[in-house]
Amino acid sequence: MSGDRAGTKQFDVGIAGAGQLARMTCLAAWPLGLRVGVLGQPGEPAVPMAAGLVEGDWQSAEDVARLGAVSGVVTLENEFVEASALAAVEAAGTPVRPGADALARVQDKALQKEMLRDAGLAVPRFMVAASADAAVAAGEQLGWPLMLKARKRGYDGYGNATCESTTDVGPAFERLDAGEGVLVEEWVPFVRELAVMIARRPSGGSLAYPIVETRQSHHVCHEVLVPAPSEPAVIAAAGELAAAAAEAAEGLGVTGVEMFELEDGRVMVNELAPRPHNSGHYSIEACETSQFENHLRGVLDLPLGSVALRQPGAAMVNLLGTYEGPANPTIGAPLAIPKSHLHLYGKTDVRIRRKMGHVTALGPDADTALDIAERAAGEVGL
Amino acid sequence: MSGDRAGTKQFDVGIAGAGQLARMTCLAAWPLGLRVGVLGQPGEPAVPMAAGLVEGDWQSAEDVARLGAVSGVVTLENEFVEASALAAVEAAGTPVRPGADALARVQDKALQKEMLRDAGLAVPRFMVAASADAAVAAGEQLGWPLMLKARKRGYDGYGNATCESTTDVGPAFERLDAGEGVLVEEWVPFVRELAVMIARRPSGGSLAYPIVETRQSHHVCHEVLVPAPSEPAVIAAAGELAAAAAEAAEGLGVTGVEMFELEDGRVMVNELAPRPHNSGHYSIEACETSQFENHLRGVLDLPLGSVALRQPGAAMVNLLGTYEGPANPTIGAPLAIPKSHLHLYGKTDVRIRRKMGHVTALGPDADTALDIAERAAGEVGL
Repeated sequence: MSGDRAGTKQFDVGIAGAGQLARMTCLAAWPLGLRVGVLGQPGEPAVPMAAGLVEGDWQSAEDVARLGAVSGVVTLENEFVEASALAAVEAAGTPVRPGADALARVQDKALQKEMLRDAGLAVPRFMVAASADAAVAAGEQLGWPLMLKARKRGYDGYGNATCESTTDVGPAFERLDAGEGVLVEEWVPFVRELAVMIARRPSGGSLAYPIVETRQSHHVCHEVLVPAPSEPAVIAAAGELAAAAAEAAEGLGVTGVEMFELEDGRVMVNELAPRPHNSGHYSIEACETSQFENHLRGVLDLPLGSVALRQPGAAMVNLLGTYEGPANPTIGAPLAIPKSHLHLYGKTDVRIRRKMGHVTALGPDADTALDIAERAAGEVGL
Repeated sequence: MSGDRAGTKQFDVGIAGAGQLARMTCLAAWPLGLRVGVLGQPGEPAVPMAAGLVEGDWQSAEDVARLGAVSGVVTLENEFVEASALAAVEAAGTPVRPGADALARVQDKALQKEMLRDAGLAVPRFMVAASADAAVAAGEQLGWPLMLKARKRGYDGYGNATCESTTDVGPAFERLDAGEGVLVEEWVPFVRELAVMIARRPSGGSLAYPIVETRQSHHVCHEVLVPAPSEPAVIAAAGELAAAAAEAAEGLGVTGVEMFELEDGRVMVNELAPRPHNSGHYSIEACETSQFENHLRGVLDLPLGSVALRQPGAAMVNLLGTYEGPANPTIGAPLAIPKSHLHLYGKTDVRIRRKMGHVTALGPDADTALDIAERAAGEVGL
C-alpha cells in the first residue's frame, strides 16, 4: 500500500492567491484527496474551503517563500507573482508549476509576445516603445488605432489603452509605462474573440479543451459560448495555434490562450494566462474533467483527465457587479431556471463590474445554453 | 437587492454529523453561496471544507442544541440522532428537516415499517417480537429463514440477523433487543435490490432520481448500476412506490428508498434513509443536479434541480477498506482510467470494509460504466 503523494508537506499544492480561481481549485481537490493551501487574507473567496491559509500577500516574496515551505508544489491563480520570488521557491527545493523562468516571460506582455513570435506563431504586429515618441513612431508603422499595453500587471482591460491618433499616445504612455517601456500593438480587426484551455503535465502530454467564443463587456469577459461558432478550419487552426503557444510558454497545469479570429479565417494569439481562466469555467459542468481538476493533475504530474464535452453545447455568463455595497444574492430565482448551474464566489462586497460569480448552462447548442444562462444570471441581482 | 437567505445565523444549514455525506454536501454548498456547518470532531471527513465546526457529538442532545442555535436549518447525515434532541431544536425555533416527528418514525425500523404498511405500501410481512419466544412464534408464521432486525441504529448489516431455524433466534434476539423488542421480517427471495433517491421540499414538489440496482458485499453497498436493468413496468412501479414511501415518511431534502424486486416483478420497500445515501453518490457526475445539492435545496425550500441523467448509463463502486492501518491511497493509477471519477473521503485510517471513498463512471450503459469504475477502483489500493 504505497500512495503516490510522497509529500511530507502540509499541502499537496499551494496557490499564491486566494480568489475565486483558488476557490474552485480547492473544491476540485477534495474529491481527489488533495490538500490545497492558499496564500491570502481571511475573508478571501478560497479561504473557507482551502486545506489551510498561509496568511500573507502574493506580492511579498517572503510570504511566497512561506507558502513554498509548506507546499509540495506551488502554483498560481494570477501571473503577476514576482518571478524572482518563485525562483527562490524553486531554489529552496519546491517545484513551481509553471516554472519561474516560464512565468517571467509570460508575465511581461512584451517578452510573451516575443516568445510567441520567436516560436513562429501568429501574433499581431508589435514593438516595444521606450518613450511616447517611440510609440508615436510605432503608430506610424503599425497604423491607427494603436493598442498600448502595460508590460506587466494588466488584466481585464486595466493596463490597456486604445489610441485613435498621435494625440492620445502621450497620456496613455505616461499612464502605462512603469519604466521599461510599453508594448505597442497593431489594432486587429477581429470578427470574434476565441479562447481555449490547454492542459499539460511535466512528463508530457497535452489536451485541448473545446475552442470557445468569448464576449467582453467593458474589457471584462462577460459571456462564453461553447463551442465557438467558427468554421471547422478556423477551429482546427485555433487548436493547433493554442497548443503550440502553451508549449512555447512551457505551460503546466492549464494555460488559457486568448485569440483573435480575423475575417479571412486567420487566427492570432492575443494573450496567455498560465493558470485556470475565466473562459474555462464552463468546464466544471460541461466537460468530463474541469479545468480546475486538470490544473491540479497537471501541476502534480498526474494523468490528465478527458476534456470531452458532456453535451453538444454550453455557455457561461459572468455575474458582474452592478452596484456598490454589501452582496446579498438571490438564489431561489436562478435555481428555478432548469439546466442552469449557479456559482457564487462568496465575496461580501459588490463593486461595479466585479466578478461575483458565474452561471453555466448546458444544451443542444451554445445559443440555447446562452439563453438559459442569461436568464438565470439575470435573477441573481448582484 | 434583497437576498432570500434572510438568515442571521452563522450557518445556512447545520448537519448533525461530519462524515462523508456531510463532506460531499459541504462541497455542493459553496457554489450556491451556502454556508454549511457540521457537528463533529476535528479530523472527521467534512471538517476541512465545512463553513465551520461545532465541536461535539451528534449523540449528545446538548451538542445538537448548540448546532441548532447557530444554524438556519438543521439536517442530518444519519437517522440515529435522537428525535427528542431534534424536537428540542424545533421548539427553540430552528426548523429540522426532515422534521423530528418524521425522523422518530423512520429511525425505529418497526415504526417505519408500520408507517409504510399503514400508508398501503408494499413491505415484507413483519411483526414486532417482545421476546425470543415471540420471535420463534413469528418464525412459525412468517417462515424460515427469518430476518431479525434491531429497531434502532442498524446500518450496513449491523443490527440484522438471518435466522435459519428456531435455534438461531435466542442468541440473535439477545444481541439485537435493546429493551423494546425486535423487528421480525419474512425472508424476501428478491432477484435484485433497487434503490432511488427522492427529492422533496416543504412547499411541495417531488422529483425521483433514476431507479438503480444496488449490489451488496457482506451487507455493505458495494456497487450501484444506473439505471437498474429491470423491466420498464418494474421501474415504473418502483418509482411510484418510492415516491409514495418518501411522502409517507415526510422526507425533506433527499430520501433514499431501498427496495426488493421479486421474481414476479413485484416491488417492496426494504428501508428508508431520510438523507443523502450511498446509492445516490453516482449523481454527482451522472445527473444534472447531485443528491447533495438537491438535499440542500430541499431542506432550504429552494427550487429542486433537474435529476436527469447526463449520459444513458453510470455506475458507482465503493472503495471499501481491505486492511487495517494508515490510509495511503494511490491516485495516479485510477486517474489514468478514462471516464472514471475518483472520490476520496479523507479518512486517515483504513479498516476492513470501511467506506474510504468511491469511484463513479459514466457510459453508454450501466455495465460499460461498471467495468470502468471497477478498473479504476481496483487501482486505489485502500
